[in-house]
Amino acid sequence: MKGPLVAVVGGSTCTAQEAEWANAVGRLIAERGAVLLCGGLGGVMAAAASGAKAAGGLTIGLLPGNDAADANASIDVALATGMGEMRNALIVRAAHAMIAIGGGWGTLSEIALARRTNTPVVGLHDAFGAAVAIHREERPEDAVRWALEQASRPGGIMDA
Amino acid sequence: MKGPLVAVVGGSTCTAQEAEWANAVGRLIAERGAVLLCGGLGGVMAAAASGAKAAGGLTIGLLPGNDAADANASIDVALATGMGEMRNALIVRAAHAMIAIGGGWGTLSEIALARRTNTPVVGLHDAFGAAVAIHREERPEDAVRWALEQASRPGGIMDA
Amino acid sequence: MKGPLVAVVGGSTCTAQEAEWANAVGRLIAERGAVLLCGGLGGVMAAAASGAKAAGGLTIGLLPGNDAADANASIDVALATGMGEMRNALIVRAAHAMIAIGGGWGTLSEIALARRTNTPVVGLHDAFGAAVAIHREERPEDAVRWALEQASRPGGIMDA
Amino acid sequence: MKGPLVAVVGGSTCTAQEAEWANAVGRLIAERGAVLLCGGLGGVMAAAASGAKAAGGLTIGLLPGNDAADANASIDVALATGMGEMRNALIVRAAHAMIAIGGGWGTLSEIALARRTNTPVVGLHDAFGAAVAIHREERPEDAVRWALEQASRPGGIMDA
Repeated sequence: MKGPLVAVVGGSTCTAQEAEWANAVGRLIAERGAVLLCGGLGGVMAAAASGAKAAGGLTIGLLPGNDAADANASIDVALATGMGEMRNALIVRAAHAMIAIGGGWGTLSEIALARRTNTPVVGLHDAFGAAVAIHREERPEDAVRWALEQASRPGGIMDA
Repeated sequence: MKGPLVAVVGGSTCTAQEAEWANAVGRLIAERGAVLLCGGLGGVMAAAASGAKAAGGLTIGLLPGNDAADANASIDVALATGMGEMRNALIVRAAHAMIAIGGGWGTLSEIALARRTNTPVVGLHDAFGAAVAIHREERPEDAVRWALEQASRPGGIMDA
Repeated sequence: MKGPLVAVVGGSTCTAQEAEWANAVGRLIAERGAVLLCGGLGGVMAAAASGAKAAGGLTIGLLPGNDAADANASIDVALATGMGEMRNALIVRAAHAMIAIGGGWGTLSEIALARRTNTPVVGLHDAFGAAVAIHREERPEDAVRWALEQASRPGGIMDA
Repeated sequence: MKGPLVAVVGGSTCTAQEAEWANAVGRLIAERGAVLLCGGLGGVMAAAASGAKAAGGLTIGLLPGNDAADANASIDVALATGMGEMRNALIVRAAHAMIAIGGGWGTLSEIALARRTNTPVVGLHDAFGAAVAIHREERPEDAVRWALEQASRPGGIMDA
């Protein structure tokens, strides 16, 4: 295996600041030998994939539609699932750990499902407040460090 | 068709008060000619299904596992999906409207996905605060009335 | 539970003879207290559902698309899965037994998956020859009898 | 993108001859710049992945279960789908072309679904006779050449 799968989730559109965080996260994931998993589209997903590619990493996109050509330009392996938003659950299940940046309803569905199924998830300036109780970090390097620590735990139990 | 599909979502364990609300909701769904859709297990799901059956309604359970025998005793049609928690996305997609009562991470994943995919969803004393912006009602009859109004709209656009 | 789920699978277009067989199978499933499960569309699916409704039965359709309105007119509960042809696997998994009539590639995928996952399947003049080794019957009543016998077995082991 | 996704499907146990064919196919897929997609387990899947790795290629496994550790030793990216045999449909959908070697019921389900959904599929000494009408080749190099030609076609229309 090429290293743990770390998913980066967030909106398909995002702010410049969110893109910067996502890019840094993608780069760090690649530098530390992990594989970037994401939904394969724009916004946070594209920024994270771009960061990972710039650092020579491997990027996997699980697309909602039937056409691999929908993937952003930094996706190495675009898997067209044809499952629509149900593919969110596939990302959560396949990931060894997950980092959420910004985000809307789709991202919230992924965070909640991750908590439900014990996929470790950390919020890096995610859009959700104290009502959504997840582990949080302020800096990309801390989010990636935490994610990789969690990914390497047997059973993947997290402490939020 | 036997009428719109109204999903009731909530925890597989719940308080006595939540069970009472769920039971009333199930009964009202049946009385008004709709079909109850749920995850087929215990807690809110079992209470809603029990209420629907008491009123002569039809109850459908989409189970996470491979064995239809896992369904609660009030489920008429138990569909074993074998998809684990990914079946939450199937409930959200198949429902014409959704009512959330109490709930934990699984329920939150369903609410968020419903908002993401435009399945109308109403919270009836759901466990989530103002951070989760959904339409809310205080009484079972109001929640069911709202759900049925939304279910009958072309395109299912909701006003939260 | 309203009785075992018996799936009827076959082409979305079919011959008049196939429709007659499917109609008889649907009627018999209903008469014997089982629930008809199918893909919800035309051809064999519509004929089977029509037969089941004529006998007062209950019919469930698992649709490939996102719109319940795509279901044929005899479907009581139309579940829009949005999973495309992946919904074939859902039919196979949820069914307690399966009857194949005529059919093309989609039907063959369901038969093969049923054999792979131990869902009992009987061919009633299915389109596949000796290369596809399944239990076969010549008459609708025999196919339904066999399917119901298999559906009631613990573990669902079949003898092909 | 790292090149087209070519799926290799076949039994999780296989003959020595089938393993040899699968190994050669995996090697050729890698040599020609494509990515190997498979079910991630043993038999034909393991032999194809081993061949691809020996040639420096990239290997993706879509596992039926929830644990990435179930993947064979030559899988670079193990995606645990938790969907059971339903993951066969995911392989078929994500692949740009598919090569079937030997095989049993699971493989037949994949071939049939590929034909149903227009994923180009070639049989390389597959276990199915003339009743299963797919394009066939005798040699690994011809099967891979055909698969890559099909994968590069717009729309992916095949001539069987």
